[in-house]
Amino acid sequence: MKILRTIYAEDLEDIAIGGAILGTGGGGDPYVGKLMAQEAIRKHGPVKLVDMADLPDDALIVPVCMMGAPTVMTEKLPQGDELIIAFRKLEQLLGRKIDAVLCGEAGGVNSTTPFVVAAATGLPLVDGDGMGRAYPELQMVTFTMHGVSATPMVLCDDKGNSLVLETVDNAWTERLARAATVEMGGSALLAFYPMSGDVAKKCVVRGTLTLCANLGRTLRESRAANGNPVDAISDMLGATLLFHGRLTDIDRRTIGGFARGTARFDGVEEWKGQTFKLDFQNEFLMAERDGAIVCTTPDPITLLEAESGNPVTADSLRYGLRLVALAFPCNPQWQTPAGIALVGPRYFGYDADYIPYQVLGHAGGRDQASPA
Amino acid sequence: MKILRTIYAEDLEDIAIGGAILGTGGGGDPYVGKLMAQEAIRKHGPVKLVDMADLPDDALIVPVCMMGAPTVMTEKLPQGDELIIAFRKLEQLLGRKIDAVLCGEAGGVNSTTPFVVAAATGLPLVDGDGMGRAYPELQMVTFTMHGVSATPMVLCDDKGNSLVLETVDNAWTERLARAATVEMGGSALLAFYPMSGDVAKKCVVRGTLTLCANLGRTLRESRAANGNPVDAISDMLGATLLFHGRLTDIDRRTIGGFARGTARFDGVEEWKGQTFKLDFQNEFLMAERDGAIVCTTPDPITLLEAESGNPVTADSLRYGLRLVALAFPCNPQWQTPAGIALVGPRYFGYDADYIPYQVLGHAGGRDQASPA
Repeated sequence: MKILRTIYAEDLEDIAIGGAILGTGGGGDPYVGKLMAQEAIRKHGPVKLVDMADLPDDALIVPVCMMGAPTVMTEKLPQGDELIIAFRKLEQLLGRKIDAVLCGEAGGVNSTTPFVVAAATGLPLVDGDGMGRAYPELQMVTFTMHGVSATPMVLCDDKGNSLVLETVDNAWTERLARAATVEMGGSALLAFYPMSGDVAKKCVVRGTLTLCANLGRTLRESRAANGNPVDAISDMLGATLLFHGRLTDIDRRTIGGFARGTARFDGVEEWKGQTFKLDFQNEFLMAERDGAIVCTTPDPITLLEAESGNPVTADSLRYGLRLVALAFPCNPQWQTPAGIALVGPRYFGYDADYIPYQVLGHAGGRDQASPA
Repeated sequence: MKILRTIYAEDLEDIAIGGAILGTGGGGDPYVGKLMAQEAIRKHGPVKLVDMADLPDDALIVPVCMMGAPTVMTEKLPQGDELIIAFRKLEQLLGRKIDAVLCGEAGGVNSTTPFVVAAATGLPLVDGDGMGRAYPELQMVTFTMHGVSATPMVLCDDKGNSLVLETVDNAWTERLARAATVEMGGSALLAFYPMSGDVAKKCVVRGTLTLCANLGRTLRESRAANGNPVDAISDMLGATLLFHGRLTDIDRRTIGGFARGTARFDGVEEWKGQTFKLDFQNEFLMAERDGAIVCTTPDPITLLEAESGNPVTADSLRYGLRLVALAFPCNPQWQTPAGIALVGPRYFGYDADYIPYQVLGHAGGRDQASPA
């Protein structure tokens, strides 16, 4: 099989930073996953990144990820081998050797967790994922839209408990896995959505791990060159600036296994006198400026520190931070009726239709006024 | 194999009544299980009841049961084949033919559910169970005391979802299965505690299904003969009368997948002027008379209608009912330190040690005064 790129332990630094940017505020702090992945690569050797197109149609491909509230995941570290256990248990259950590892979610901690499994098993890792960003629920992957069942799925905790789920649909997988994860203490490790190469070719969001690496490298190099890291990231993502302001209020609670809340900002510089509000359920879902919606899910919203360009997750938001909010284009699969049904604003309880942020009239960026 | 007795559909009437008596207020209304079992027997043929002693030491024996809040179980009927699906899935997982079905809990709905599986599979049903009564949690079986793991366990719901659990101990099985059951809508069907014949011989509470049948028959015959059904049941159980009164207050809520609450009674006849209080978590756990404890778990407490002798479950308690409360001896395994740790009053949050109800000074029955 043609290898796109070989990933060494030090490459995980950039990938984790890029994963935090695509994490859109959630997906868990990639720091934890980075440490796990680096340890696995140092122990077992580097990871072979491959392009989806180079995998045989009959290859068996299995995504892995960590599930739970990000606030818990960063405090309750996995033992390290739960992901391998989940992966091997699923392989045994399927009665067939798995040919490649896939990333379920390129944003947040799960941009790095698949490297743990790829390193430990020596299997190639597909350069892509099922979201192109992060989302809070298991069924929120492009795989669901293509009729791939999330089950059989194996879920393991850090204590040695494991569950095999077989459900009637992917929404039930989410419900039952979420209940188990909450009971397991708030986080769990899983292998799920087993699929063949031909199916994966239709639904995988391609190139997202390379995008993570490039975002991390760009940020690092821009800082080293005393450049403008926010602009550099924004250019690479084709993003639009939604706001630049200082955090004035943060309301955050862990409910039903999710970190939910709202952050409020007062504008600085050219945004002075304006306000900005950001809702999240693990991930940022809805942005309002002066009371008008300027961006909603599925369009990704990410927060960067204004000076350093460092991505900021919802669980590390705190009073006084000076931040820049960017919106960037989502994978087009999310804009289909099936995509909107899975992750549109109405699914998350908002009485609003999805309108792309570019259509909302903000494509012009920071010079544009907000709508009435 | 020597067959103790053949059970036909009409025999389930008595067994269900006896199961409600051993249900000690919980275990679910046996009416639902009775209908399921009768339908299965009419369709597949009668059930062969066997004694534990007649099974080979290397036989593979699997208990089945229904799990959930009794209040839900009676309203949300299973489709009928979930128990068979759970049983067959576990058999497949174990990679070996199961030789006999076992009753997990002889009290309540689970006195009859094993007949569904025995009828459908043609396998013998062991005359015994893991409690000799009903208890609210999965680990509360004599099997746990003998080191039998509850897992691998298969749990199915009425929608077609299934779970395979493998846990580090039986308390974790309870936690994870309970969370899944709540998410599944409050009830689920399961096959668990796979064990060999030699182990089963050490821990099974023997003869409990025959006891159920005899209790039901005694009640029916006593009524037909215009006898005293309460006395007839009391004699058969070797029971002690704890109270005779009218229900004045019932507090009941479904919390964490359990039906919890307290019932209060005012005495009638020779108990006039005295009060009685009964706490339950699915099952009756603690009885107080005039503020003094007169019986606690693991000693079984059951309520019968004073006139008819019909058993009354906690979820059918209502204002004005005239009831008799009986205590009867528990299986001696529950009185060991391991038994008390599993189901003693302290496990259920009471600041009280277990003292057998006979020792509490009430062996004399209704003539005895309550302690100060």
